[in-house]
Amino acid sequence: MVSTLLHGATLLTVDAENRVIEDGWVAIRDGRISGVGPKAAIPEAALFDEVVDLAGHLVMPGLVNAHTHSAMVLFRGRSEGQSLLTMEGWYNSIREPELSLIASDIGPAVKLSCAEMVLSGTTTFCDQYFFAEEIAEAVSQAGIRAVIAYGIVQLGDEERGAEELAKASAFIEQQRSADGRIVPWFGPHAPYVDNSENLLRAEVAVAMKYGVGMHLHMAAGPEDNEETLKRYGLTATQALDRDGFFNGRVHAAHCLDLSDEDIAIFAKSPAASVAYCATAGLRSGREGICPAVKLREAGVVVGLGTDNVAANNSYDMVAEMRVAGLVASHREGVAQPISSRELVRMATIEGARALGLDHEIGSLEAGKAADIIAIDLSGPGYSETPDIETVLVYSGSGRDVRHVWVSGERLVADRKLLRQDYAEIRAQYSSTYEAFWDRVAKARKVA
Amino acid sequence: MVSTLLHGATLLTVDAENRVIEDGWVAIRDGRISGVGPKAAIPEAALFDEVVDLAGHLVMPGLVNAHTHSAMVLFRGRSEGQSLLTMEGWYNSIREPELSLIASDIGPAVKLSCAEMVLSGTTTFCDQYFFAEEIAEAVSQAGIRAVIAYGIVQLGDEERGAEELAKASAFIEQQRSADGRIVPWFGPHAPYVDNSENLLRAEVAVAMKYGVGMHLHMAAGPEDNEETLKRYGLTATQALDRDGFFNGRVHAAHCLDLSDEDIAIFAKSPAASVAYCATAGLRSGREGICPAVKLREAGVVVGLGTDNVAANNSYDMVAEMRVAGLVASHREGVAQPISSRELVRMATIEGARALGLDHEIGSLEAGKAADIIAIDLSGPGYSETPDIETVLVYSGSGRDVRHVWVSGERLVADRKLLRQDYAEIRAQYSSTYEAFWDRVAKARKVA
Ligand SMILES: [Zn+2]
Ligand SMILES: [Zn+2]
Repeated sequence: MVSTLLHGATLLTVDAENRVIEDGWVAIRDGRISGVGPKAAIPEAALFDEVVDLAGHLVMPGLVNAHTHSAMVLFRGRSEGQSLLTMEGWYNSIREPELSLIASDIGPAVKLSCAEMVLSGTTTFCDQYFFAEEIAEAVSQAGIRAVIAYGIVQLGDEERGAEELAKASAFIEQQRSADGRIVPWFGPHAPYVDNSENLLRAEVAVAMKYGVGMHLHMAAGPEDNEETLKRYGLTATQALDRDGFFNGRVHAAHCLDLSDEDIAIFAKSPAASVAYCATAGLRSGREGICPAVKLREAGVVVGLGTDNVAANNSYDMVAEMRVAGLVASHREGVAQPISSRELVRMATIEGARALGLDHEIGSLEAGKAADIIAIDLSGPGYSETPDIETVLVYSGSGRDVRHVWVSGERLVADRKLLRQDYAEIRAQYSSTYEAFWDRVAKARKVA
Repeated sequence: MVSTLLHGATLLTVDAENRVIEDGWVAIRDGRISGVGPKAAIPEAALFDEVVDLAGHLVMPGLVNAHTHSAMVLFRGRSEGQSLLTMEGWYNSIREPELSLIASDIGPAVKLSCAEMVLSGTTTFCDQYFFAEEIAEAVSQAGIRAVIAYGIVQLGDEERGAEELAKASAFIEQQRSADGRIVPWFGPHAPYVDNSENLLRAEVAVAMKYGVGMHLHMAAGPEDNEETLKRYGLTATQALDRDGFFNGRVHAAHCLDLSDEDIAIFAKSPAASVAYCATAGLRSGREGICPAVKLREAGVVVGLGTDNVAANNSYDMVAEMRVAGLVASHREGVAQPISSRELVRMATIEGARALGLDHEIGSLEAGKAADIIAIDLSGPGYSETPDIETVLVYSGSGRDVRHVWVSGERLVADRKLLRQDYAEIRAQYSSTYEAFWDRVAKARKVA
């Protein structure tokens, strides 16, 4: 593997001390960070295959998108005026056309999404959807890192539930043996709605056996608790706790309507975390806002997620940091209750922690995988940098990401994909998009 | 003047019918749009000095930033955790250091701001600040269009009020005779707080005499009404109405806390408008959110503003459209109560109307000034365009603006400034910024 020395940049290490190093360097060997430091201690350039001068750049760990559905890019821009966090809006805009999706749609869609993510600085994302094998295949071709939660839907049919669980288990076994950039998880789609109590208990048992996490939507609106309150007198969080979910690793998206008791359940769990999806939450028109400040005060790990780009409609995690900070300000009634520094942590190391990957990624520290981005600071928005995190979060953009490495492999150079041909990805995506929506239109005619 | 033919682009005309023309052209002669149409009716290329192929681009009217304070870029990134829409936060972060500002700081700051605005597609902005002459000088060097409201502060001193009014009047006389890209207005800074009842009445009389508008902050929080409620039993809006403000052109920023009666005052006025500053409002942590939907339903013109970039911290009007749409969704409790199409109108023709400039700018129509931007659609966020406005607002970025014309003059080509040297602007800004904050630090030591 190519060894690389990056130098001359401002380093945002996101380490435990939040060190910012002016005119710093990062050394990459065998796909890992072998050292980080200030100019005074720079290693000899001749020791590296490649030396990259990054003066005028911010170098930081790759961004972690803690919740999305990469194949759903096919739905982007087609749900104006529909709330995707209500059952009705979701059905009209997503579920109904989704029935026309076929396995061969997935690869081209996920590849486009991966291109968009990596070009804007995301090096790891947490995905949940059907067609997990096809997603894994496309992600592995793109070379970025992903937790892929195998979406399980049962719909009242216990036999189908058992079958899905078996398939999900097979997916987990198979992916665990691969190159390590893909981390397979379980993704019970909608607990107690399309995953029964029995199935949920079986899923927890299997997840614990494999030592993998579970990624699900939770409390995206008041109706998420209706079913369990009616049936058990418990909120969905409380019911999942009763069924053992919070003994394992559980990563929940949205959480717009958590009670204090629900937050306490997250806090007492050994590995429970939340994906705060501020943009998707606002756009949905739901009254609730994820209590990110309260959750963090209670010690819960909170990452940031874009959600699918039908609900966002962008994978730009820099924009997502900004909106997450703005929304928290509005919710708490004070200016910036989550500092820019903490927002950067949420979009990097905290997201990594939510996915159980903080030993591997999320900061610039020797020994970690070399998932690194370089942001071009030549634009006018970066003219004054009294505090680089504020400037990045509130004046920055994923469009300014210029170079990206994952496990030491350079995936983006000068804003261009290296491993894959962007024009080809886009052309394949376009024909897939056209064919998919033609299929939807035909299905609608028949219905 | 150079005549130019732009062709091959998707045109977002923002005309009365919201026409979108695929593979369309725009002709520019003598600084004005001489024609717009589809490929079938394209004029002969030989008739133009310059022909620009814009295949793969979106061509639309330049964006209108309906509220900012361009010199305040000097304060960007230095007020983490401070609400700039409360008296206390504003004093600590802005007013106190502002006392160290000197006239020669203004040019370099405004030039940086103009560069940032025009590079991200803003061709017209509405400014309000002290040092109006210095602002006008810098804007006129940059070549972009601006309403510059001469900031008037009296602070209980009737003599000073009269003096300021005389100076503001001289500014208006002088600027009216210039090249037309600068439109001088009055800017009473904080009515009834630092502008007395007498002064306000005199301002209205003078504004009506000159036929110019008044730009002010209004209802940025509950305390904005406290003074007038105590003194007259009226909200600030009602007091301004009593004092004749709403007989002239009045353009009010923020309006987080308007009552239904206040909205009715705006609606009955012949030329009252609001600058909805969604990002700045959220960031402030104020409870109120500008009732943009209600205002528009009442027939009030609502433009979009970034406010100063200490409160935002970006001039990106594409990002501002998105946040404005998201915030409205949250406020109204429904997904996208303001459609993407309407958000685009608010950022163009409605902003122009708020500034009394809709006869000149804000849409691609023959006869209007050629204030035009071309957005590069090659990025993955623009892969599917079922509805170009949705895609622009929710997946777009001001970073994708590639070319900009103002009054037919090309100010940006291939993301580079043409009229001015960006490196020089940035270097001058940096030294001004350093010197200014050194001065602030010294003043603090003395105090
Ligand atoms: Zn989701
Ligand atoms: Zn303002």
